[in-house]
Amino acid sequence: MGAGFFLSFEGIDGSGKSTQARLLANALKKAGHDVVLTREPGGSDGAEEIRRLLVEGDPNRWSAETEILLFTAARRDHMERTILPALEQGKIVISDRFADSTRVYQGATRGDLRGIVDQLHDLMIKREPDLTLVINMSPNDALARGLARDSGEDRFEDFGLAFQQKLHDGFASLKHDFPDRIRMIDGARDMHTIADGIRDIVLDALP
Amino acid sequence: MGAGFFLSFEGIDGSGKSTQARLLANALKKAGHDVVLTREPGGSDGAEEIRRLLVEGDPNRWSAETEILLFTAARRDHMERTILPALEQGKIVISDRFADSTRVYQGATRGDLRGIVDQLHDLMIKREPDLTLVINMSPNDALARGLARDSGEDRFEDFGLAFQQKLHDGFASLKHDFPDRIRMIDGARDMHTIADGIRDIVLDALP
Repeated sequence: MGAGFFLSFEGIDGSGKSTQARLLANALKKAGHDVVLTREPGGSDGAEEIRRLLVEGDPNRWSAETEILLFTAARRDHMERTILPALEQGKIVISDRFADSTRVYQGATRGDLRGIVDQLHDLMIKREPDLTLVINMSPNDALARGLARDSGEDRFEDFGLAFQQKLHDGFASLKHDFPDRIRMIDGARDMHTIADGIRDIVLDALP
Repeated sequence: MGAGFFLSFEGIDGSGKSTQARLLANALKKAGHDVVLTREPGGSDGAEEIRRLLVEGDPNRWSAETEILLFTAARRDHMERTILPALEQGKIVISDRFADSTRVYQGATRGDLRGIVDQLHDLMIKREPDLTLVINMSPNDALARGLARDSGEDRFEDFGLAFQQKLHDGFASLKHDFPDRIRMIDGARDMHTIADGIRDIVLDALP
C-alpha cells in the first residue's frame, strides 16, 4: 500500500483538459494502475451539490468572497470523501481542476482577494497535488476548435472572451508560483500527440 | 440616515427565540421603527439555498470542517445582501441566530475547531451584532413545552437531547466571551412577560 499519487489538470474551458484527463486515466489503467478520475468543483456527493450552486444561474449571484468560501467547502468535501481515501489506498487520483483554478479565477476577477484565497487554502485544504498539468491554449483557438462545451453550466463562460484571456494568462503564470509541481503542456497539437506526451511525463513522475 | 442597529437572538431549538424575535419586530414596528427580521442559516436568496444543504439530510453528510465553511459562506451572503444594506439605511436588523450559533454548535461537537471558526469569522465576516439576546431554557423544559418544531429540518435535532444540553451550556457560557453585547434572558417565564422585558432592554439599547 503506497502513499498514492495526486495529479491535477488545469486550463481554460475548451483547452481539452477534461479529454486529456480521461485519456490519461485510461492509459494508466491499461498500464495496470489503480486510478480515480475526479473533477472540481464536485467530485463527491456533497461537493457536487455545492457545484450546482456555483456553476448554474446568474454570473453575479454570489460575491467573489462567498464564491471562494463555497469553492473551499466543496474542495474540503472532495478531499475528505474522494481524494484522501483513494490516496491512502495507494491509488492515482486525477482531478480535472483543483485549487489552482480558484487562484487563477480569483486573480482574473478580484486580484485583491488572492490573500484570502491563500489563507483559506492554508487553513482548510493544505494539500497540493504532486503534479499539475496545465493545458495551455489561447481562448481564440479553444473557441475555433469548438471545444467549448454547451452544457448549461455556462456561468463562467458568460463572462466572455476577454475574461477567458485573463484566465489563460493566469494559468500560464502558475509555473512561476509553483515551479516544482507544474508542467505546461502545449494544447495546440493533435489530441493523441498531447496524450502520448502526458502519459510519458506521468509515468516518469510516478514513485 | 443612521448607522442602524444589529440585534441577534440565540438559544437552543425550542427556547422560543424565533417567537420572541417576531414579537420584538412587531413591537418595534408599532413604536415606529424600520425593522428587518431575518434568520440564519439563510436570510438571503443565496444563503437560503446553502441552508437547504445544511439543515436537510443525514446528520453526518458533512464533516465539521465543511459545515463551518458552508455556514460562513451563507453568513457572508446574508451580511452582504440583507444585513449591511439594511443597516446602511438606518434600519434595525433582528437576526434569529448569527455567528454565536456556529461558535456554540462547534464547541458542542468539535471544540478543537473553535480556532478555525474564529479565524474564518475574522477573515470573512468580521462584524458582530450590537446586541445579542440569549434565550436561556433547559432542553427538558423546551421539550416539555412542546416548542421543538417538527419542520422536516431536523438534522440538528437528530443529534439528541444530550447534545441539546451541551448546546445549552455553550449558549450560557457566551456571556463570558462577549460580556458587552450579550444579555441572558430567562426563557422559563410566560411568553408575553419575556417579550415585554426584551422590548424594554432593546428600546433602552437603541442609539
